[in-house]
Amino acid sequence: MRKLYHFWISPASRKVRLVLNEKGLKYDLEVEKPWEQRDEFLALNPAGDVPVLKDENGAILSNCQAIVEYLEDTYQDVRLLPEDTLEKAETRRLVAWFDHKFRSEVTENLVEEKILKRLMRTGTPNTSAIRAGHHNIHYHLDYIEYLTERRNWLAGEDFTLADISAAAQISAVDYLGDVPWDQHPGAKIWYSRIKSRPTFRPLLADNLPGMPAPKHYADLDF
Amino acid sequence: MRKLYHFWISPASRKVRLVLNEKGLKYDLEVEKPWEQRDEFLALNPAGDVPVLKDENGAILSNCQAIVEYLEDTYQDVRLLPEDTLEKAETRRLVAWFDHKFRSEVTENLVEEKILKRLMRTGTPNTSAIRAGHHNIHYHLDYIEYLTERRNWLAGEDFTLADISAAAQISAVDYLGDVPWDQHPGAKIWYSRIKSRPTFRPLLADNLPGMPAPKHYADLDF
Repeated sequence: MRKLYHFWISPASRKVRLVLNEKGLKYDLEVEKPWEQRDEFLALNPAGDVPVLKDENGAILSNCQAIVEYLEDTYQDVRLLPEDTLEKAETRRLVAWFDHKFRSEVTENLVEEKILKRLMRTGTPNTSAIRAGHHNIHYHLDYIEYLTERRNWLAGEDFTLADISAAAQISAVDYLGDVPWDQHPGAKIWYSRIKSRPTFRPLLADNLPGMPAPKHYADLDF
Repeated sequence: MRKLYHFWISPASRKVRLVLNEKGLKYDLEVEKPWEQRDEFLALNPAGDVPVLKDENGAILSNCQAIVEYLEDTYQDVRLLPEDTLEKAETRRLVAWFDHKFRSEVTENLVEEKILKRLMRTGTPNTSAIRAGHHNIHYHLDYIEYLTERRNWLAGEDFTLADISAAAQISAVDYLGDVPWDQHPGAKIWYSRIKSRPTFRPLLADNLPGMPAPKHYADLDF
């Protein structure tokens, strides 16, 4: 059976779960706390981060973008990257935007400071990092609004890996209640379309041990 | 004519230059100082970073990995990703390793602190960041040695985007003289094979204004 080593609040794990769900691929989930640096896990992935996928054929894959490109190459019934090379490049540009720019400017400042430091017991949250995260998120939500005023989904006409990468980051921040939806109605419409996809439901059912999700997190009418 | 907006010491720019050179594609180079945040440049790339490629067909592309995947899709005479999906996933895993893990653990601590802060006039180098960069680089050079003891190139039998991504980062650090080659003879052999490729020569001829390269940087017998 296919198995995904993941951690609930990890956006990279969420991205791969969404891709597996969209492609209709069955898998078992195994929780991995990457900060424990288990030898057995480091043997699967020397970078030590989640997610790691063990595919049905026994192949071990790591790095979230390498995993989803592999899934896109291997399971082609549902496509999450456009066929056209320029549209594909635009999709990958936005994937990198959310995987790296959004993550470093927003997610790390909020999710790492507020949740991971507590779980890892590595100190108290840095209030200036949290302030930066709250400041920066407006710029990214503005960008989502800008794009979706001009396009059906973030990268163009179709739902793609760009929407998945963005939703993976934003859903982790939304678990904290830190997305100012009321000030970004266009971004809220985009996210409500994502939330209503059946493939997104399992993520909305997530609950971190000892840190239950706020009510609006799973609510389709948020 | 194809044009690449780049900055000399930017590893992401170096990566795209190497891919263009390997594929034998001609291009003009235009220096862009991304910290100046020129409006005309932000109109090409809202993320504001280098490189940006304007291809012959007029298409504007940004994000280094999106650019090189586009070049790989479009110009197939020279392939830099393996055909096999698992080997391709392994290559992309290593690309992400160097583009993100090496960059955040080594390059940012050394190149940003020692060079970019001086160019951007944003303060003095952070000595604890520099110490961390010098500490972390050993682990990455060990990993290069580990891989090349088992494989011809980093990702397998063939020279790939993994070698290019690694060389792009390491060459920027080597411009500072901060790669401890003497302690990592296996990594040095790998890098000397890269340095002797004709496609690498233009990078070895780079000189930052006011900060000439040290002698060993361009020397094939370093």
